[in-house]
Amino acid sequence: MSLKSFISVPKDSHFPIQNIPFGVFSTAEKSPRVGVAIGDQILDLYEVSSAGLLDNVKGLKDPKAVFGQSTLNTFMSLGRPVWRSTRSAIQELLSEKNQLKDNSQLLGRVLVPQSKSRMHLPAKIGDYTDFYSSREHATNVGIMFRGKDNALQPNWLHLPVGYHGRSSSIVVSGTDIHRPAGQRLLSKDKPVPSFAPSARLDIELEVGWFVGTGNEPGQRIDIKNAKEHIFGMVLVNDWSARDIQAWEYVPLGPFLGKNFGTTISPWIVTLDALEEFVVQGPTQSPEPLAYLKETVPSAYDVKLEVHIKPAESTKFQTVSESNMKYMYWSITQQLAHHTVGGCNMQPGDMCATGTLSGPEPGSYGSLLEITWSGANKIPFDNGVERLFLQDGDEVNLVGYCDSASGYRIGFGNCQGKILPCPYSA
Amino acid sequence: MSLKSFISVPKDSHFPIQNIPFGVFSTAEKSPRVGVAIGDQILDLYEVSSAGLLDNVKGLKDPKAVFGQSTLNTFMSLGRPVWRSTRSAIQELLSEKNQLKDNSQLLGRVLVPQSKSRMHLPAKIGDYTDFYSSREHATNVGIMFRGKDNALQPNWLHLPVGYHGRSSSIVVSGTDIHRPAGQRLLSKDKPVPSFAPSARLDIELEVGWFVGTGNEPGQRIDIKNAKEHIFGMVLVNDWSARDIQAWEYVPLGPFLGKNFGTTISPWIVTLDALEEFVVQGPTQSPEPLAYLKETVPSAYDVKLEVHIKPAESTKFQTVSESNMKYMYWSITQQLAHHTVGGCNMQPGDMCATGTLSGPEPGSYGSLLEITWSGANKIPFDNGVERLFLQDGDEVNLVGYCDSASGYRIGFGNCQGKILPCPYSA
Repeated sequence: MSLKSFISVPKDSHFPIQNIPFGVFSTAEKSPRVGVAIGDQILDLYEVSSAGLLDNVKGLKDPKAVFGQSTLNTFMSLGRPVWRSTRSAIQELLSEKNQLKDNSQLLGRVLVPQSKSRMHLPAKIGDYTDFYSSREHATNVGIMFRGKDNALQPNWLHLPVGYHGRSSSIVVSGTDIHRPAGQRLLSKDKPVPSFAPSARLDIELEVGWFVGTGNEPGQRIDIKNAKEHIFGMVLVNDWSARDIQAWEYVPLGPFLGKNFGTTISPWIVTLDALEEFVVQGPTQSPEPLAYLKETVPSAYDVKLEVHIKPAESTKFQTVSESNMKYMYWSITQQLAHHTVGGCNMQPGDMCATGTLSGPEPGSYGSLLEITWSGANKIPFDNGVERLFLQDGDEVNLVGYCDSASGYRIGFGNCQGKILPCPYSA
Repeated sequence: MSLKSFISVPKDSHFPIQNIPFGVFSTAEKSPRVGVAIGDQILDLYEVSSAGLLDNVKGLKDPKAVFGQSTLNTFMSLGRPVWRSTRSAIQELLSEKNQLKDNSQLLGRVLVPQSKSRMHLPAKIGDYTDFYSSREHATNVGIMFRGKDNALQPNWLHLPVGYHGRSSSIVVSGTDIHRPAGQRLLSKDKPVPSFAPSARLDIELEVGWFVGTGNEPGQRIDIKNAKEHIFGMVLVNDWSARDIQAWEYVPLGPFLGKNFGTTISPWIVTLDALEEFVVQGPTQSPEPLAYLKETVPSAYDVKLEVHIKPAESTKFQTVSESNMKYMYWSITQQLAHHTVGGCNMQPGDMCATGTLSGPEPGSYGSLLEITWSGANKIPFDNGVERLFLQDGDEVNLVGYCDSASGYRIGFGNCQGKILPCPYSA
């Protein structure tokens, strides 16, 4: 593709003109509003709309009102044809032939350096659902908990297992996370819990996807149309306190082990930007039931990395390299399953894939797997080692797709730092 | 108490002047706004505020703006002292000595018959959490699933087990519910699912409580202050598709078996109105950890009933009589536990108790227990029988407290009707 912007974008930038991810930002002068990332800049869509530059986008009535909001929910509710026309119009505005490049006064109003901006949650997230769709992750955890012969539960190959998460504690990249305290067993032989800050604080490398347009209660979203309902994707770090989780999760699932915080990257990368990276996913056997059957490739070739900077260190180190393409159940299968019983989805709802582990030990998406439940230490520079996270440790998730045409479609940072538990017990 | 209203309230009304529950209603002329129930009327708090009658309530700034909204979230965020002063001011306005009774013009504006009103969800529910706090229910289900010796899981007596539910599908009393379809096992010996409308559609008799004021991420709500954070209670019918749930729930908990619909009663009864009915709950052994220890009685003596009208019948029949006082883990223990790891609660979040079964067979809170997993039919008039719900069946939950002073503090209806699954499979 020869699409090129008049804004200079380095080759390894996550945000070339081919990406155009949507987010919500503010600056010292600007209240929270919608923008798109381009190189190391943000294009302020409220100001762009105010200047009338989005007046001719089909289906986008009153763009100033839509983009002047502090969330993307209204824009999401307009549907994929409008998302697509809007993104095209923005690409046109930013292209090297557009006269915008010569209007320095207007450029001063509509462009903001990312370094001078603060990012916010991109949407008001009504409900958050977390799936468990990596076969490698489910198998690894299953082996650790139940042994090799019963690793996958009987239902796992028949449906994308998922559960409801906590939406109030979803935070945007850069927000510190307090170590949670909770009940945990000190010995498996003695089922009496003690109360203390978690000693097995973990990460989960996931991808999240946002519902754009939803469905009415009692209705379904057919898998053939599922993509039309998905606005785009972010990175998700589903922080997990393994000791709390292990004690509490029977029989109703994870609760306090997860609900103290979930970090997402601020820029929502649209499915249109990711279309180029669609690949065939893993073979599914047994064949899924009709409502889960895909007729087109539905996996995404997104490279994923986990970077950790221990409190004693000065730099991040890559501890895992995975890929979203390994995921067994696709995001469209997840959406079809979520709604097949009539559960209504709403604009701004977020779903996450579950931990995305790859087939090799170097590609696991959680410390639980990387250290094999705390057996193998992860070495860092200068003799520093880790099993689980210590106070002051920082984690960053990175995700990107490399195009054959030379550009990179990326997700930006999904970063967080562990603060000590504010209580002594 | 000699408090009496100039509005005539029958003795068995749920809404005497001692109750004053808050809700959101609309009429043909009035857009959704906040009101309180009194007898068979609603006092329109927006009109009351517009007339300046709540101008002197301490802490209640701009009551017209607070009560003109279509949710109670803003009022909830003001805190218990304000809820309490507001309720007292309303009781004063409605008392037989108040001059309001003689102002027929104003009365015409502020009073609306409930029969001419439509009730709405009382709050924008950000997150919904469901607990599992009835020992009798957990034991009954445990016996059916795992046998008598392993009925309660090891963690159950140490913490109030809970999980995240779906907030988008919470609906107000009177909303029809579509039967969900989903995957289910036809035989336990052959772990291959078929897809069909649920054949084991059930109810769950629960009480819900609304968070008024929340907590910051990383902070806790101490059990000693927990009551100050709880705005009030409603009835909850947590509709459940047992066949879908049984197949899907391992290991992450219930999902499609629950998220197709949850019905709540429209009037939130405040903790102040229920204070008179606080009683000592069940003895807790083993002794709970410090953060869960109650120092004052914390159970509520609320009578609960399940009424069912089969599609072939003309009237409701009582199929269960239970009581909230049997609940093992109190609502204040639930809130302390929910936040002990730092999970942030927000105004309008809803938690539910889980199915509230009593000790006797006649007091079970689900059809699963009443029919003992489909073994014993429930007889209705004219030879009608039920194991689980059929299309066209209606369910109503009823809850109330009878005061020694002769009045009744009630919750109104929590009603729903089962519509056929809109799909053939």
